[in-house]
Amino acid sequence: MSRVCFTLKVRRERLDAYRAAHLAVWPEMLSALREAGWTNYSLFLSDDGLLVGYLETEDFDAALADMAKREVNHRWQAEMADYFEPLSGGRADTGLTRLEEVFHLE
Amino acid sequence: MSRVCFTLKVRRERLDAYRAAHLAVWPEMLSALREAGWTNYSLFLSDDGLLVGYLETEDFDAALADMAKREVNHRWQAEMADYFEPLSGGRADTGLTRLEEVFHLE
Repeated sequence: MSRVCFTLKVRRERLDAYRAAHLAVWPEMLSALREAGWTNYSLFLSDDGLLVGYLETEDFDAALADMAKREVNHRWQAEMADYFEPLSGGRADTGLTRLEEVFHLE
Repeated sequence: MSRVCFTLKVRRERLDAYRAAHLAVWPEMLSALREAGWTNYSLFLSDDGLLVGYLETEDFDAALADMAKREVNHRWQAEMADYFEPLSGGRADTGLTRLEEVFHLE
């Protein structure tokens, strides 16, 4: 299992709306993430809009590729695009920055 | 168990040295973290010096307070201080920024 950390930037004027949207993620989106192997997946948000994602998965590239094939993910990412600072490719799931793990304690 | 995410900023000219130091964290520092209840603890680093910490613990304030009492933590934080951008209080364990969890999928 690998541990993955990535960042994105949420627009400051959309922080409350972003929080609200994530209290009500569509059940079919949650099911898709589970089926694609995203486990122990959290999103954390700072007051200035830094969004940090953390998850555990066998193979992150495969988990992203699996989601990229799913229609529900395209609908979700289309809804989310406007929450983020401009992204390469315009989509959060392709514009994220992955960080390197430099330390781990079980 | 609560999931905790925090950030710090590593000085860009010290990124390689920071990585190297974390390949050889002192065994007594690892033991202290375990005893203080830090579990599944990872540090992630971006190319521009953003450091993200993720851990799981019963009570993060208690876990920080427990470490703050330990002599080995004072020695470790003194070694680490020079790796970070200037911090309030001059110490990484008191100058970190905690982020809010806005989403979780088991």
